[in-house]
Amino acid sequence: MSHPRWDTLLINATLATFAGEAPYGLIEHGAIAMHHGRIAWLGRMDELPGEPASLADAIRSLDGALVTPGLIDCHTHLVFGGDRAHEFDLRLNGASYEEIARAGGGIASSVTATRAASEEQLLAQSLPRARALLADGVTTLEIKSGYGLDLDSERRMLRVARRIGRELGIGVRTSFLGLHALPPEYKDRRDDYVALACDEMLPALAAEGLVDAVDAFCEGIGFSREETRRVFERAKQLGLPVKLHAEQLSDLDGAALVAEYGGLSADHLEHLGDNGIRAMAAAGTVAVLLPGAFYALRETKLPPIERLREHAVPIAIATDCNPGTSPLLSLRLAAGMACTLFRLTPEEALRGVTVHAARALGLRDRGTLAVGQRADLAVWQAKQPAELCYWIGGQLLRGLWIGGESVPA
Amino acid sequence: MSHPRWDTLLINATLATFAGEAPYGLIEHGAIAMHHGRIAWLGRMDELPGEPASLADAIRSLDGALVTPGLIDCHTHLVFGGDRAHEFDLRLNGASYEEIARAGGGIASSVTATRAASEEQLLAQSLPRARALLADGVTTLEIKSGYGLDLDSERRMLRVARRIGRELGIGVRTSFLGLHALPPEYKDRRDDYVALACDEMLPALAAEGLVDAVDAFCEGIGFSREETRRVFERAKQLGLPVKLHAEQLSDLDGAALVAEYGGLSADHLEHLGDNGIRAMAAAGTVAVLLPGAFYALRETKLPPIERLREHAVPIAIATDCNPGTSPLLSLRLAAGMACTLFRLTPEEALRGVTVHAARALGLRDRGTLAVGQRADLAVWQAKQPAELCYWIGGQLLRGLWIGGESVPA
Ligand SMILES: [Zn+2]
Ligand SMILES: [Zn+2]
Repeated sequence: MSHPRWDTLLINATLATFAGEAPYGLIEHGAIAMHHGRIAWLGRMDELPGEPASLADAIRSLDGALVTPGLIDCHTHLVFGGDRAHEFDLRLNGASYEEIARAGGGIASSVTATRAASEEQLLAQSLPRARALLADGVTTLEIKSGYGLDLDSERRMLRVARRIGRELGIGVRTSFLGLHALPPEYKDRRDDYVALACDEMLPALAAEGLVDAVDAFCEGIGFSREETRRVFERAKQLGLPVKLHAEQLSDLDGAALVAEYGGLSADHLEHLGDNGIRAMAAAGTVAVLLPGAFYALRETKLPPIERLREHAVPIAIATDCNPGTSPLLSLRLAAGMACTLFRLTPEEALRGVTVHAARALGLRDRGTLAVGQRADLAVWQAKQPAELCYWIGGQLLRGLWIGGESVPA
Repeated sequence: MSHPRWDTLLINATLATFAGEAPYGLIEHGAIAMHHGRIAWLGRMDELPGEPASLADAIRSLDGALVTPGLIDCHTHLVFGGDRAHEFDLRLNGASYEEIARAGGGIASSVTATRAASEEQLLAQSLPRARALLADGVTTLEIKSGYGLDLDSERRMLRVARRIGRELGIGVRTSFLGLHALPPEYKDRRDDYVALACDEMLPALAAEGLVDAVDAFCEGIGFSREETRRVFERAKQLGLPVKLHAEQLSDLDGAALVAEYGGLSADHLEHLGDNGIRAMAAAGTVAVLLPGAFYALRETKLPPIERLREHAVPIAIATDCNPGTSPLLSLRLAAGMACTLFRLTPEEALRGVTVHAARALGLRDRGTLAVGQRADLAVWQAKQPAELCYWIGGQLLRGLWIGGESVPA
């Protein structure tokens, strides 16, 4: 044998590799080997370099079940205190947004609850949400700050994000989202808050190793292009990549701004215009679509899917898991919504939660099944990839490997 | 003690009883006792007739977790062969309905696959779907025939429905839906098929104890009012209750027809008119809304919720789980869709999957938490009932009791 005995070999699998030219990168009657946390071999059963039993320490036959890369949720706000189910109830009982805001609701209520929660409380409240994502196939997720809005509380959120990664053994990438909302104590001192976020919070948190990327909410009700540029400049100085909540409710041409900084992604994009699309295509910035928020807000303006296709902008899909506008706990359901609501093909939607989602996080070591990639694998009770988008809800996950280790899902 | 020791007592619970006048029938700091498969006592902790340990053989403290009646899915087609994920894929890649139909797709493909499947195969394919519903809190479900469309195949579907009930220990109510579609071999002999379904299939299957209710698809592309009346007449003769797929795509006034027969429910109802509403209100016929089909078909015409409220027509919500227009495997998600898409309040949606769903199945022994009712209980990782509708996906179920027995979910 020209290679070491592999740790684990999965045989009789249908592999959706999302690599190569075939639809879904499909390999039927396939096998995939994991060794030292990486994918060591994959191909058709009849190409295996020997009898399975001679090749690996552990052999698992999947009876034709589908294997995909572990799913990657590249946009979440899943660390937060409290929830907003009561607001949801009030609103459906006829309360206006204004009445809810007057009663301390809206994002302010999440900020209050997050600030009030200790690190342990925040972890205890957030872990079940991360577990829910994991149970539907997620092996890497991004988590943003942005409900703390002061140094200590933002730090606590990002520390909890890191701890979720360690507790569950999953990949977590953090984004600093200090420019998410103006905290109430800065109501009349907007510039002071932007300065605090850019000049004090971000450098301090980056120095503590808590920040993998920098994000902002660039919107009429959020932060302006100029304010966004200010935090991007600081990110550049610190050597951190940027991404942006852009063009969700209006077109501020935020996509072009984030592309100007070589950004990883522009996210939401219902109101994305041609200028932004061209800038993203040129910069290689990923379009992250968030159908959960579109659904929950009952939006009707669709992101410009056809023009994104024309310009070959890579499209990713994420849950946007957050307490206000997308209390969505399944990335697979987000992919299904991208098909049903945005008319993506199942292949586009699934590339959007694997290879393109990895790219939106700047990760090159995952998101496809290929030799040398991290052995992050999801095994599904399904025969064809489209089933992952077709079934709405349900329990399709049969097994999950993260870095070559089988984890209970 | 004036009562026997109870089998099981759950303490420190938040009870959403859906009985009485309080919102959700809520009892906080509550307890609920089960004995011989029934609810033996429920109320506030401080009303318990003694120390918990003295009252029951098994005591479980829920730390404030929410308890609801086991959910009831009153409209499903979950027994079928094959799936239609490939069609879903084709359609999103631009194939027209006509092209798919020419390739043997649409309902015809489900009929072909169901006819080709043995009873064991059909059971093996359908059980995971029933398990998925159970895993999100369902303890009773309705299952329709209608993909067999010949005596043997309809019988096989209904036998599998009964076996699902026995395998999982859940309540299953069957509906004969022979008038679902015209089978291909009767393409030019429509009347012969209606006669077969009404005069041979239904009486034979009813005699075998396989039919709890009779349903039909009354629609331009389905069966006419006259054909529907024919099967309802036979049902009446056999002493079977009726329900109807009505007013989904157009207004044939099917709701008034099913109400004329004192029907249990009229289902779908996007195009329901005032005549139907008044007839349903007078007859006590439940309006079963199916937001999964509305979502998957991207319908825009909403059922007349406000007028149903005005006429106090009870509203139920179901998954419509089926391979073509609603591959939905979570009743809780259907309830959430009823809020987000149809603007039901969470309380209306949850009454729709409990007390009103029971009524849509003619069941008086479940759907609320009350003394004497079946001890079908769901325990949730939630503090307030609205959370069940608010979270989209996720794993909220903590425990399930069916007929007083704890079942693994
Ligand atoms: Zn976001
Ligand atoms: Zn139906």
